[in-house]
Amino acid sequence: MALATMSNSFYDALETREPALREAALMTALPQQVAHAQRSAPAFARRLSGIDATTVATRHALAKLPVTRKHELLELQLASRAASVTGAVGDVFGGFSTVDWGAAMPRVFASPGGLYEPEGRRADYWRMARALFASGFRAGDLLHNSFSYHLVPAGAMMENGAHALGCTVFPGGTGQTELQLEAMLALRPSGYIGTPSFLKLLLEKAAQSGAELPFLRRAMVSAEAFPPSLRDWVRDRGVEAYQCYASADLGLIAYETEARDGLVLDEGVIVEIVKPGTGEPVASDGDVGELVVTTLNPEYPLIRFGTGDLSAVLPGFCPTGRTNTRIRGWMGRADQTTKVRGMFVHPAQIAAIGQRFPQLGRLRLVVSGEMANDRMLLRAECATFDASLAAAVTEVIREITKLRGEVRLESPGSLPNDGKTIEDARSYR
Amino acid sequence: MALATMSNSFYDALETREPALREAALMTALPQQVAHAQRSAPAFARRLSGIDATTVATRHALAKLPVTRKHELLELQLASRAASVTGAVGDVFGGFSTVDWGAAMPRVFASPGGLYEPEGRRADYWRMARALFASGFRAGDLLHNSFSYHLVPAGAMMENGAHALGCTVFPGGTGQTELQLEAMLALRPSGYIGTPSFLKLLLEKAAQSGAELPFLRRAMVSAEAFPPSLRDWVRDRGVEAYQCYASADLGLIAYETEARDGLVLDEGVIVEIVKPGTGEPVASDGDVGELVVTTLNPEYPLIRFGTGDLSAVLPGFCPTGRTNTRIRGWMGRADQTTKVRGMFVHPAQIAAIGQRFPQLGRLRLVVSGEMANDRMLLRAECATFDASLAAAVTEVIREITKLRGEVRLESPGSLPNDGKTIEDARSYR
Repeated sequence: MALATMSNSFYDALETREPALREAALMTALPQQVAHAQRSAPAFARRLSGIDATTVATRHALAKLPVTRKHELLELQLASRAASVTGAVGDVFGGFSTVDWGAAMPRVFASPGGLYEPEGRRADYWRMARALFASGFRAGDLLHNSFSYHLVPAGAMMENGAHALGCTVFPGGTGQTELQLEAMLALRPSGYIGTPSFLKLLLEKAAQSGAELPFLRRAMVSAEAFPPSLRDWVRDRGVEAYQCYASADLGLIAYETEARDGLVLDEGVIVEIVKPGTGEPVASDGDVGELVVTTLNPEYPLIRFGTGDLSAVLPGFCPTGRTNTRIRGWMGRADQTTKVRGMFVHPAQIAAIGQRFPQLGRLRLVVSGEMANDRMLLRAECATFDASLAAAVTEVIREITKLRGEVRLESPGSLPNDGKTIEDARSYR
Repeated sequence: MALATMSNSFYDALETREPALREAALMTALPQQVAHAQRSAPAFARRLSGIDATTVATRHALAKLPVTRKHELLELQLASRAASVTGAVGDVFGGFSTVDWGAAMPRVFASPGGLYEPEGRRADYWRMARALFASGFRAGDLLHNSFSYHLVPAGAMMENGAHALGCTVFPGGTGQTELQLEAMLALRPSGYIGTPSFLKLLLEKAAQSGAELPFLRRAMVSAEAFPPSLRDWVRDRGVEAYQCYASADLGLIAYETEARDGLVLDEGVIVEIVKPGTGEPVASDGDVGELVVTTLNPEYPLIRFGTGDLSAVLPGFCPTGRTNTRIRGWMGRADQTTKVRGMFVHPAQIAAIGQRFPQLGRLRLVVSGEMANDRMLLRAECATFDASLAAAVTEVIREITKLRGEVRLESPGSLPNDGKTIEDARSYR
């Protein structure tokens, strides 16, 4: 393992465990979490019905469980609420929450579209302190938090993490840029938490008004892309900013470190990268696919939650000495569902085609042509060319998608490693 | 003491103490708090310099201490920050906070104009749980909180209190009425916390869209006037709403109960009602004056904080069995500073005139006439008519205000009991 070569300290000893010890700990926790979900979350009692939790103690066994994608969670919550007579908490969350209204759930939050998330009572429920620590924040710091506290969990997620570290938080919230800048000038926070774009706006507004923010040295940004150009722009203004990847359902998933080389996974999640639209892990480390996360959180025990976000494992270890798996940052959305000649085509249908033909490798459906005159071409990696195979695949495309498509067999490695199962190459000018 | 005659329970045993026991407890805590403020808050070390804290164990002794009015607190904070080189926390709060950035201060908030307030680490730091309990909220309830969490403390004040009670909170925040209503329909909260006007807006919006909120039964409202007409309007829509009186500096001051007869004082404050602009208590219980509050809060130990709000003690006890002093609701602002012929006239100046003439009772300066042609008449209660006294008072008016004014001696009880020291009777049409 790489030795620590930077000015490091760590949030806790978990970060520098031997990888084999971490994996053993996760695989001990996994069957317990599956059993807990089956026992305490009615939705998982149904979804994992008939599964012996004790056997789910390997990544291989985990990969056999169904993936619950974000849109499914939303649909299940909506259906549960529509059918509810009493409005019981179990109905509100579609049977995914293991806690009831009251002291065990201090807050409940909303996500767009009608999805709701419970917050458990534990300190740093969303596990953000680890990412804040890696961004350089320490006990005694004053942090300016420009995430929203209203409706959504972002503000509270960050604040709970900051409190676990022993920091004071000024809840700036969103918008009201002048008032937020005024508060910064009065309070002199050493750190900022929020979107990178709002940090840029605050720094620009300060420069315009001749105000200086020499006390502001560090930032943790999230919820948006954070390109190196913007990172350098804020660094030129004295602020060293780090990003993290987190969600309202799962809390912290991965975080940037001083090494600035990928994002290190959080210690409280089991992350898989799967072929988009399926539950099947990608063939090799480094392949781009959809992030599927199993959280060890007892209050909202999501098992194989499909985030819809694309990323890939980054080989090697973080130079800071953290030993957990690293991923590349966010690489786009996995959901490539599209319409062809008026019919929806889903990545899951392409995966289903692949399952009929084990001799095929990676698949990619390319949709081209003008609108209302679409063409579909299935590019399929295959070690040997076989005309009868191509004909058989053509038949199955028609059967599964109800659309006619062509097939092109290509040698292994021909397809780009970008996680795309469906490529929309139509012109929309 | 009145026996409990309603369907009551109490937040704790403090509420039903024998009044003499409460007073003894407060007068034991008072000298300790004065000593704490002198020792730990540099601003009070200066303001209460030379005072032997052990002697401040009676309301009479308390009334000799200087009042710190809100505008003075603001000016002291602003001056302290302007003079600060290091931006230390003591400078930020003008020497009024006894806690530093870090774990002892989870949050810091802003008030308009550049005033900042620390939040201490204790559960229910703002003491709102007592008021929420009196509004009927209980452990296990889901409460929709429409106060802002951004910049100002209102949202967090209410949420901390709800958490102390064992409730779940949905942080709705301000604005976004459609989204807040959508969340209410999905989550079915039993209670609302926020301004009365936003509650009205939500109920109207629900009615317009044909949505029903039968689950919403109770509300605690604050930060605005809550007239009986509006209370009845929301009751007609199934919501029983109670009000409370609280501030960002002090937390809870007084709260409404099921009796709906005045507001009962919180157990953590010592409240005086003084002649506006002075530190002198009003002559009799029932006289309208400015609320001056001493908080027993260790983190921000405000001693004789002048709220600028007018109220009066309500005689007798709350029919629910709570034994603390009751006050009438908010009766306007105490600060009646005005301009006469281009010169400021302050209530403190009128009080200073009164101090020169012990034989005078209540005073009221009536400013009348057209703009730029103002007339001042000092109405003074006095048991006996004395022409030489009137002439002497006229001289002193000129000396203190630098303005000419007339004097009218009137029999005791002539002046209205509305807390006004300066009445602006000019026409501004």
